[in-house]
Amino acid sequence: MKKTSVNICLMGSTGSIGRQALEVVEKNSSLRIAAMSAHSNTRLFSEQLKKIKPEKACITDPAAFERYGSARTGGTKILPPGELSALCTDKKIDLVLAGSSGSSALIPIFDALSAGKTVAVANKEPIVMAGDILNAAAKKYGGRILPVDSEHSAVFQCLENSKSPPEKIYITASGGAILRAGKRKITPGFILAHPVWKMGRKITVDSSTGMNKGLEVIEAHHLFSVNFSAISVLLHPKALIHGMVEFADGSVSAYLSEPDMKIPISYALNYPQKRKMSRRCDFTAMDLRLEKYPADKFICFKLALEAGKKGGLYPSALVGANETAVNAFLDERISFPRIAEIIRKTLSETPKMRYNIPNALRVEQWAKERAEKLIK
Amino acid sequence: MKKTSVNICLMGSTGSIGRQALEVVEKNSSLRIAAMSAHSNTRLFSEQLKKIKPEKACITDPAAFERYGSARTGGTKILPPGELSALCTDKKIDLVLAGSSGSSALIPIFDALSAGKTVAVANKEPIVMAGDILNAAAKKYGGRILPVDSEHSAVFQCLENSKSPPEKIYITASGGAILRAGKRKITPGFILAHPVWKMGRKITVDSSTGMNKGLEVIEAHHLFSVNFSAISVLLHPKALIHGMVEFADGSVSAYLSEPDMKIPISYALNYPQKRKMSRRCDFTAMDLRLEKYPADKFICFKLALEAGKKGGLYPSALVGANETAVNAFLDERISFPRIAEIIRKTLSETPKMRYNIPNALRVEQWAKERAEKLIK
Repeated sequence: MKKTSVNICLMGSTGSIGRQALEVVEKNSSLRIAAMSAHSNTRLFSEQLKKIKPEKACITDPAAFERYGSARTGGTKILPPGELSALCTDKKIDLVLAGSSGSSALIPIFDALSAGKTVAVANKEPIVMAGDILNAAAKKYGGRILPVDSEHSAVFQCLENSKSPPEKIYITASGGAILRAGKRKITPGFILAHPVWKMGRKITVDSSTGMNKGLEVIEAHHLFSVNFSAISVLLHPKALIHGMVEFADGSVSAYLSEPDMKIPISYALNYPQKRKMSRRCDFTAMDLRLEKYPADKFICFKLALEAGKKGGLYPSALVGANETAVNAFLDERISFPRIAEIIRKTLSETPKMRYNIPNALRVEQWAKERAEKLIK
Repeated sequence: MKKTSVNICLMGSTGSIGRQALEVVEKNSSLRIAAMSAHSNTRLFSEQLKKIKPEKACITDPAAFERYGSARTGGTKILPPGELSALCTDKKIDLVLAGSSGSSALIPIFDALSAGKTVAVANKEPIVMAGDILNAAAKKYGGRILPVDSEHSAVFQCLENSKSPPEKIYITASGGAILRAGKRKITPGFILAHPVWKMGRKITVDSSTGMNKGLEVIEAHHLFSVNFSAISVLLHPKALIHGMVEFADGSVSAYLSEPDMKIPISYALNYPQKRKMSRRCDFTAMDLRLEKYPADKFICFKLALEAGKKGGLYPSALVGANETAVNAFLDERISFPRIAEIIRKTLSETPKMRYNIPNALRVEQWAKERAEKLIK
């Protein structure tokens, strides 16, 4: 048992990951939120600050910060948007949990890794857009990336301390709403009734298009330094097996748990310890069926893989176009099949530029605007 | 990659484990059989010696040794039965693989561990009969036990290098012939058509009575230092998941492979590396169903657990009575249900003596004789 506390900087405390992380921290006396950030949900953020009382906090949306002001809430000093990286790299911070959505945490993650921090990364976009660059920074400055996404946490744990390299990596897909859609029209309402994982709205749509699984394959490629040909997706409706690793002798290590994000969040925050959690798998009658992943039914899966294999700035264009298209779908401005069309068209126009973080963010922004024009 | 060879002493080269171990060694240039032993199958042993040319060998059945003589076969020196421990503890030996049946390897295993050797143990009886004593010897003299039994190899690999202790251990049972028996009379012929694992005759019967799984639970108790209450058996007809470990956070690590003993044998011999093997799990349509183990249908499972929980010399009486009863069943001298009756009666008369290796062997011998009398 560790005696000293782990001082955590939580980015994105008002989002789905952030809220679940706070529940985990509340139950672990060895974990402490020393700093936290939110984007624009200042009402919830204010409540959280009063309860948690971190030393520092940051509001990353300029308008929200303006509205909220820099006045201390309780004992917490509120920093303006530009100070997020300073929050993460503060010498008191032991671990950064990046739970903010999209690419907004990319630069702070890069800065934290460059300051030698351990960064638990819960959202895919930063690694998808700049995996090579983040890996290089971590290697150069002694930082470490811990995956929080359930599939990657599973594979990470299957591989950890293994004396043998992986021959193949498997991540699972629960399939989501889409495999039960039949011929009905796919609306946001239908998709948001996704039954297995408790997730945000956008990522729930990403699960239905296959984009989420495609981004996960790109993420696995970077996190575990394996070729795309050595990564497979398997359909697993019950979402109990999250990831598996096959070794040279044909043996397979698998990681199972109830579908509950708090388990991988807790693992990352307590790394390398596994602390007491309440949910248990029931093995007395367990459907662990694994099947071929029906890639053809997931309109964005192959698009994501193509962009991932091309590498460079293509994944950034993918991320930008996808965000705009999914939001348009959620706003009922476009139909479900149009999501893939808009991404495909945008990707085909990806500008040729040098692969670095500023350009990754530029291309992502370009893709959002290009996709928006295509929608209109 | 290791450059130097692992010098192996193979006990029981003519048995099922021994023959499969020789196949594994043949395909691994880094493994070398430096010494080997067999009990009485001198015809096969002679063939093996000519091919493998170990430096030393031992024939452990006195009559067979007398028949075969101590003349060198090729370059191999043949030692008499009493020299088996000397073979295992030779300073040139890096690893001992105990593949001999029953308790015959108990003393050599004890001696090898006491000489600080790594001993890969493929048969259950030595650990079931004297697990506490073997563990103490290994701890005191720097020896190490590597399990080879598929379930224990699986659990061992799930636990290896884990930073967290196990909360629960699961081993699987394929169920064997007995669950398909219906109302028919259970004959040796019916049972020996066991479909999943390629095993010897006696262990195939042990699988059908539940004795094998009971012995495995006792073995797991010793190998992983866990209470009986933390060990569960699950029915898993396809025999792909061999073992699982549950941790405090509710996560579960599982080990899968095709049912092929050469995989755990290779792992133990190459430990901690996983060398190339050809068999692969097919995950495109895999039935990984797990169910409650129907303990009531396995007439010897509970008997084994009772003896294991009592500890001391009870497991030795269990092993002795079981061997005699199973052999009598295979010879069609007793019916299938009588196996359990004979073991139960013998166990109830287990003599009270001090728990040490000589007494474990004495009680095993006593139980064989007592069971034989009950059969007559």
